[in-house]
Amino acid sequence: MKESSNHKTPQEIRGEIRQGRLPGVTAGLAPGYTQANLVILPQEYAFDFLLFCQRNRKPCPLIEVLDPGQTEAVTSAPGSDIRTDLPSYRIYRDGSLEREVTDISEFWKDDLVSFLLGCSFTFEEALIRAGIPLRHIEQGTNVSMYITNIETASAGVFSGPMVVSMRPVHRSMVVKAVQVTSRYPDVHGAPVQIGDPQALGVRDLARPDYGDAVEIREDEVPVFWACGVTPQAVAEKSKPTLMITHSPGHMFLTDIINESIAAL
Amino acid sequence: MKESSNHKTPQEIRGEIRQGRLPGVTAGLAPGYTQANLVILPQEYAFDFLLFCQRNRKPCPLIEVLDPGQTEAVTSAPGSDIRTDLPSYRIYRDGSLEREVTDISEFWKDDLVSFLLGCSFTFEEALIRAGIPLRHIEQGTNVSMYITNIETASAGVFSGPMVVSMRPVHRSMVVKAVQVTSRYPDVHGAPVQIGDPQALGVRDLARPDYGDAVEIREDEVPVFWACGVTPQAVAEKSKPTLMITHSPGHMFLTDIINESIAAL
Repeated sequence: MKESSNHKTPQEIRGEIRQGRLPGVTAGLAPGYTQANLVILPQEYAFDFLLFCQRNRKPCPLIEVLDPGQTEAVTSAPGSDIRTDLPSYRIYRDGSLEREVTDISEFWKDDLVSFLLGCSFTFEEALIRAGIPLRHIEQGTNVSMYITNIETASAGVFSGPMVVSMRPVHRSMVVKAVQVTSRYPDVHGAPVQIGDPQALGVRDLARPDYGDAVEIREDEVPVFWACGVTPQAVAEKSKPTLMITHSPGHMFLTDIINESIAAL
Repeated sequence: MKESSNHKTPQEIRGEIRQGRLPGVTAGLAPGYTQANLVILPQEYAFDFLLFCQRNRKPCPLIEVLDPGQTEAVTSAPGSDIRTDLPSYRIYRDGSLEREVTDISEFWKDDLVSFLLGCSFTFEEALIRAGIPLRHIEQGTNVSMYITNIETASAGVFSGPMVVSMRPVHRSMVVKAVQVTSRYPDVHGAPVQIGDPQALGVRDLARPDYGDAVEIREDEVPVFWACGVTPQAVAEKSKPTLMITHSPGHMFLTDIINESIAAL
């Protein structure tokens, strides 16, 4: 299925997802196009959350914010429907996960504001293209993620620690990894730390807080990037009456070409 | 006065402005540090305006947004007071300029939200350092600004055309000008147009909508950048009950080092 989807446009793939024909994770779909994290909140939280994203651009790079009640991502994905075009959603009530669904139409209200945030798939594609292999992709596991001692800049009810993802990079390729990801500030950008988990308050790389552990070889350096789990973790902690997000790995496919959002 | 101010920190200069000892424009003060445009709006407009800035990052690059009622720019200028640290402010009521003042303490309310937006001083300094002279600075006039046919992406009550600034660049230096300003996305970034005023709906370069006209020599190309007048013009048009801005050229001095916000 995925093989044949590689030649389809993001719009076609969104259509297939809408019809329930692509129920899995979206990694590898529509290569070259930007995929996005989704956070939906009632309007009463929207200013604070938008401000939180503005103040924490590395973990929370905004791709598009929809008008209150709006269901089409008019700029990044014309013709889309945010309620049906992701393969899986999570519904949170008062900060607790209530259930996972494949369609949020029944939960929709006119005061909901949808935030699309950049996702690391874009810079991972660029790293691989630059000759930097990524172990978690080779092994078909989730990237390792850790809660750090870096406090985000709070905004209203939203505050909490930054979550980072870690990828082992061969010591000869660390500079290249910084250069490549620096080009993509809208999808987390340059690393936040190179080689020193202690400086982030991370004690044991073998025990990630989210995702799966990966081997770090002797000639490799752990490189840490700000992670899109941060806004979800922070929003969850503030216990909003309702919050809807994508399920991990089940992203929103935009029509944005990765290279078009590169910094230089 | 300005000569001696060149060796002072932004914090020291804000202190002098607060005491009324630096009443003029801030161009040339604290070279190497980022200066910012200011827009203050009541909280009822804050989500829409923040969303407008998010959707129009070239004309409206956000440096910092203060919490409702907050008067200190805690991130970009610790110890500052937004009510006293600019040499001149404009007070608008229902979209009309009411008056200019040097202190807005008497207008302050706990529901006001202050937006600091990037200003072209930063990239002009970089252009000059790269050997690209700027005529309006040499002649001591204001940069030429034009209302274009480019519609901004609207947000709530905020909408309107993009305003651009124009600088004549020698044809041999146009590529360099693009490269240099591309490094500063937080202060308007790369040009929006090169050499074709008609494409922007600008009919007569000799008659700018704001600022002063400058000569364009035969071996020069007019280069257009998104302009920080855009958010003010757009906000003014929506006729908010109250809006406070800096007076043209009388900017807010931050502690941010220009090079620290460069993209690469």
